[in-house]
Amino acid sequence: MKYADDSFMLHTDLYQINMVQTYWQDGAHQRKAVFELYFRNLPFGNGYAVFAGLKKAIEFINNFGFSQSDIQYLREEGKYPEEFLQYLQELKFTGSIKAMREGELVFANEPILRIEAPLAEAQLIETPLLNIVNYQTLIATKASRIKQVTGEDVVMEFGTRRAHEFDAAIWGTRAAYIGGFSSTSNVRAGKLFGIPVSGTHAHAMIQTYRDEYTAFKKYAAAHKDCVFLVDTYDTLRSGVPNAIRVAKELGDHINFIGIRLDSGDLAYLSKQARKMLDAAGFTEAKIMASNDLDEYTIMHLKSQGAQIDAWGIGTKLITAYDQAALGGVYKLVSIENESGDMVDTIKISANPEKVTTPGRKRVYRIINMDNGHAEGDYIALEGENIEQEERLKMFHPVHTYISKFVTNFFAKDLHESIVENGKVVYEEPTIQETQAYVKENLHLLWCEYKRTMNPEEYPVDLSQACWDNKMASIQDIKEKISQDRR
Amino acid sequence: MKYADDSFMLHTDLYQINMVQTYWQDGAHQRKAVFELYFRNLPFGNGYAVFAGLKKAIEFINNFGFSQSDIQYLREEGKYPEEFLQYLQELKFTGSIKAMREGELVFANEPILRIEAPLAEAQLIETPLLNIVNYQTLIATKASRIKQVTGEDVVMEFGTRRAHEFDAAIWGTRAAYIGGFSSTSNVRAGKLFGIPVSGTHAHAMIQTYRDEYTAFKKYAAAHKDCVFLVDTYDTLRSGVPNAIRVAKELGDHINFIGIRLDSGDLAYLSKQARKMLDAAGFTEAKIMASNDLDEYTIMHLKSQGAQIDAWGIGTKLITAYDQAALGGVYKLVSIENESGDMVDTIKISANPEKVTTPGRKRVYRIINMDNGHAEGDYIALEGENIEQEERLKMFHPVHTYISKFVTNFFAKDLHESIVENGKVVYEEPTIQETQAYVKENLHLLWCEYKRTMNPEEYPVDLSQACWDNKMASIQDIKEKISQDRR
Repeated sequence: MKYADDSFMLHTDLYQINMVQTYWQDGAHQRKAVFELYFRNLPFGNGYAVFAGLKKAIEFINNFGFSQSDIQYLREEGKYPEEFLQYLQELKFTGSIKAMREGELVFANEPILRIEAPLAEAQLIETPLLNIVNYQTLIATKASRIKQVTGEDVVMEFGTRRAHEFDAAIWGTRAAYIGGFSSTSNVRAGKLFGIPVSGTHAHAMIQTYRDEYTAFKKYAAAHKDCVFLVDTYDTLRSGVPNAIRVAKELGDHINFIGIRLDSGDLAYLSKQARKMLDAAGFTEAKIMASNDLDEYTIMHLKSQGAQIDAWGIGTKLITAYDQAALGGVYKLVSIENESGDMVDTIKISANPEKVTTPGRKRVYRIINMDNGHAEGDYIALEGENIEQEERLKMFHPVHTYISKFVTNFFAKDLHESIVENGKVVYEEPTIQETQAYVKENLHLLWCEYKRTMNPEEYPVDLSQACWDNKMASIQDIKEKISQDRR
Repeated sequence: MKYADDSFMLHTDLYQINMVQTYWQDGAHQRKAVFELYFRNLPFGNGYAVFAGLKKAIEFINNFGFSQSDIQYLREEGKYPEEFLQYLQELKFTGSIKAMREGELVFANEPILRIEAPLAEAQLIETPLLNIVNYQTLIATKASRIKQVTGEDVVMEFGTRRAHEFDAAIWGTRAAYIGGFSSTSNVRAGKLFGIPVSGTHAHAMIQTYRDEYTAFKKYAAAHKDCVFLVDTYDTLRSGVPNAIRVAKELGDHINFIGIRLDSGDLAYLSKQARKMLDAAGFTEAKIMASNDLDEYTIMHLKSQGAQIDAWGIGTKLITAYDQAALGGVYKLVSIENESGDMVDTIKISANPEKVTTPGRKRVYRIINMDNGHAEGDYIALEGENIEQEERLKMFHPVHTYISKFVTNFFAKDLHESIVENGKVVYEEPTIQETQAYVKENLHLLWCEYKRTMNPEEYPVDLSQACWDNKMASIQDIKEKISQDRR
């Protein structure tokens, strides 16, 4: 890149800067604002999502601040007054952020992050935060879905070549690891994030040495651990026999881990290869498979008795192929008015799901202490004292007549304090801890919520106060609109 | 990131490094190798693709070289001999690369890049090159499809928040610009690539000021050019009337460009809004629309007479939502053997489309000089003298009996020299020139190839020599396999 001092502050939509200019011109830029980041629909028809992206969000906040070249670009290309540019140049992030921890199970319409900051600062971080959280959460969720099908099998992320550019490859594979994957093929992701890396060789190595026998021997001469790729010419007539031949010849000189299938019918080939390996005495040798796999194909392969021990998953995971975007949004829920009072805000829409829920909110997971399972999540206004309640009424936020009372529960507050007055106060867990956290939390959910197809809908309810507040805001706006038209 | 000297050399699959170690151990790492990068199927069912990614590929080559922390990571995490790490540490890229220029129209099975380099070096750049070219070409192609439907309308890229992390947002929007888009909302992409940026304000600004009238006035106080977002509360009852009221009040004090619709039924709302604007005398005011648009929705909106002048396109473009990956591959086509001779190589597969075409190749676009249209592309072995031919036989590479003879043609060599012996020799055009190049080249294609649904298949043929060479290689391998089994 051509700028030595390039930053990510301009990694935002132009309208953010134009709004900030409006606020600044009007003297409204310092008004205290509360924004919440959430998505409206679970991806892939899944019953839950797995939040990822906090690590990079923290990196972004830590590096908040326009560089000289950023300002110079705005000076040359925009029509901004010089005083405004001066203001931007000196801007620091002074707000506070609460967020779920990475690996948290999250559902539609729950504030994953809550940003409280001077309006201008909160606005400037919207686009990068959404860019980060939307993608990483999508991939962690996809990975977790795949793990629902693969169980305790080894699952390796192989998608770098099909990822959407460099960042997606590394942050995507990190999200996949959070979601339960075993390893990545991307070496830089291993270096940066401490994820185990895996990989052996490609078809090109066979082609280089012309035949598999020679190629496998050459590989074995350089590596103790050997997985041989057997589909360069003919899997059952050439690849598997050559792998067995080399493994027999070299005996204890190598650790013959197994073979990898990368094309053809994986159910048939794996069953045949298993028989050949067993017949040769390699009953411990593993069969790895790759080639456009996802949770659907894996489930079908397993149902046909495929003898596959480990799965290499690329394209369909790293691009979230069947639903390539999560529609996370970042909405203003409360703002300081001219008199210094906080006022809750709403956005109405012809699409009911696009109507926002006003007010600063918290999210609680209501855990039934009798059975250890989650009863649902409960969104309350800041200041409601949920932990102290003895009997909680939970009702459906659309079909409000559907309700239940919960007693003997533990209300787990899902928000942690990440940034306070501009300083990062959060201590990040290791990625291994985060992966373990997901696994542990999945035990909280009844398995009906975890089915990969048509899962039962997990309850995400509003507190009575939160619901009343929303209805009042809607009423308010409606009256305002009819007044204007009179 | 935690390493001051981080590089992108480890942005590769582990198996590449393990193969390189095998070659190095065997003394084969310096053998001259020829790899070609191509895809097997056009994305989106489109009739052509638009190549993008060369700029970043050149950046990667210019920065080729392991950093201290890269080597240290491999030392700590791998089982590599110290001499091998020393070798890696000193490794420079010394090979040569030919490639199509960015914006070139490209078809399935055509070598987009051809890499000739010592085996180890060629192998190490495979993964990043595929990662770059697959994504950027996908998006340039998607953008060009959208432009087939929008014609001369303004089309703005708005997808950063839904892109797959940061790099995808900026390189994706650059690819979209190459494919014909007018502008981007991503300010950093504007700064880095010289793309025009666009954007005005979001719903949050309306919410901040509670009502649209106040908000629009505040915006107008800070900005001469005004586009007002009209769907925060009620598009036709509140948004549009308020936009008109402010535009009337401020008259020449602002440049009232128009309004933006972001939800609801865009066909209905745009037609009603057009009437309201016209009735108020704002016949020149434009109507912009956004909200999960793609070429299909746009075509339907247009067919219903939607009054939309400019399109903001996000998610569906930047994630290539309906087909989120291009399956580009990087295949060894020729390798120096032990005796120093170049030998062509092939990969056989049970899937016929996965069989590779051996040999160093060139791609020619055969342009009919009688009508100025392309007859098809012609892949020949290096050294065939296509430009000199007077009468060219073109035949289908699968259904070989389908053939035609072409005379009075110009054979345009699509490969440019990018890197020679490790030095970048290519002078990049400006991005505006690249965009113009796409437009100009689309005129070469009959419109039947450009239809967004079920286009006619553009011929990509092999020369007779190339085809014979492939058949001989297949025969060779088959004989070898039966011999082994005797």
